[in-house]
Amino acid sequence: MMSKRTETVKKLRAVKWREKKQEVIDTAVPREAAITLYLNDEELATLLVTPQKLRELAVGFLFSEGILKKLSDLKQVLVDDKKGIVWVETVRKTYMGKLLHKRFLTSGCGKGTSFLNIADLKGIEKLDSKMEIASDKISGLMREMFQQAGLYKEAGGIHSSALSDGKQIIVMSEDIGRHNTFDKILGECLLEGIETKDRVLLTTGRISSEMLLKAVKTGIPIIISRTAPTNLAVDAALKLGVTLAGYARANAVRVYANEWRII
Amino acid sequence: MMSKRTETVKKLRAVKWREKKQEVIDTAVPREAAITLYLNDEELATLLVTPQKLRELAVGFLFSEGILKKLSDLKQVLVDDKKGIVWVETVRKTYMGKLLHKRFLTSGCGKGTSFLNIADLKGIEKLDSKMEIASDKISGLMREMFQQAGLYKEAGGIHSSALSDGKQIIVMSEDIGRHNTFDKILGECLLEGIETKDRVLLTTGRISSEMLLKAVKTGIPIIISRTAPTNLAVDAALKLGVTLAGYARANAVRVYANEWRII
Repeated sequence: MMSKRTETVKKLRAVKWREKKQEVIDTAVPREAAITLYLNDEELATLLVTPQKLRELAVGFLFSEGILKKLSDLKQVLVDDKKGIVWVETVRKTYMGKLLHKRFLTSGCGKGTSFLNIADLKGIEKLDSKMEIASDKISGLMREMFQQAGLYKEAGGIHSSALSDGKQIIVMSEDIGRHNTFDKILGECLLEGIETKDRVLLTTGRISSEMLLKAVKTGIPIIISRTAPTNLAVDAALKLGVTLAGYARANAVRVYANEWRII
Repeated sequence: MMSKRTETVKKLRAVKWREKKQEVIDTAVPREAAITLYLNDEELATLLVTPQKLRELAVGFLFSEGILKKLSDLKQVLVDDKKGIVWVETVRKTYMGKLLHKRFLTSGCGKGTSFLNIADLKGIEKLDSKMEIASDKISGLMREMFQQAGLYKEAGGIHSSALSDGKQIIVMSEDIGRHNTFDKILGECLLEGIETKDRVLLTTGRISSEMLLKAVKTGIPIIISRTAPTNLAVDAALKLGVTLAGYARANAVRVYANEWRII
């Protein structure tokens, strides 16, 4: 049986050049696995992921894509680590392949929702959360996320996301894909009955419009990234009442929309 | 008429918190545009991109996806910046939508080729390039790439890739998407008749198996990233004769496969 570690990180030998000298070093790289998702016996999609929390990823992905609406729609989830397969069975066997096909074709690397469609944006309710977070809490939460980012520390090249109540980190995930980190968090919250409303989403990744929409749909009013948001994410955050911050550092952060929630 | 600058970067106001104090600052974020690609009047895909070098992106994307095989297949490319549309017309009107559909469904965020299929890997010839690069050239080329990364400097949150002959940078691109940077370079090389064989690909992004395969298909024998490769990229590099290096820094670099090309 493989340990969790060997599943997510691959140890290998590399040649390190430094100042015209070379030496052989032991190092590690993130593992990339192709996970094929089946919905009611039909192949739905293959995702390239860090093979950890696959059950959470599958459930979060199906919710993010709008295929699952509530947890009670879910009958069972079976994960076969070795074959890289996750089977999801729903109570009602409505096959959503046609919808997903359209979404994939209109998504490119963004893996999903055609958010940029104005109709989609109109269908989403503006968040009215009164949640606030103290400005001086942000750097501590980002630090806590990095401290828990075991795969990143070991192998690099991995994104982290975390859900917080503004005081501590509740759910944490790591993946080679930005979107996967969020789907894993969403899936874990759904499966474990953890509330996502009035929470803070922290992430190392860029906030694109798709990432912002995913968060809004789950009621998250505050999103904080280590890096930049895109202009469409800022526009959507302004329209949908989301507090969007970026470049979170040890003692500074930039707020691009709805800054009143940061006090 | 919009300047190039306003097309690719959005200037805006943000609130900067530092040490419990806030101030309003002028800043910039990368622009994210949805570009819909039409092939012979049929809608093929919508990509989320930095709206720069769209003609190059469309051509590179079609080559990367295997839809175009050679430049003479291309009849014309029309770009409508305002509507976010690129029309590509080919000499023979073979519609590849069915193939692309399959590929998208089996790709997830990776936007493309189902590389992890062993049959695909077998169809690719091992590179026999004798190209070498001096270890002390690498940091200079990475620095040159950053110096040319104007959008990154202005707005952050943007990947860069560059093609080099080992001495200087020949083609350079920036995009919010890792894959897009490479497609833009490939498209520019095809359109401008720039050789990709025996070149070095430099990039700020993680090297996944898909990125590696894209490079191999164009004959690039040396790939150098600022960050990590995944294990599948390392495996593929070993099998296909590609020199794969990561963590390129001012005075150090790690080589994961075929280190003999770095001298």
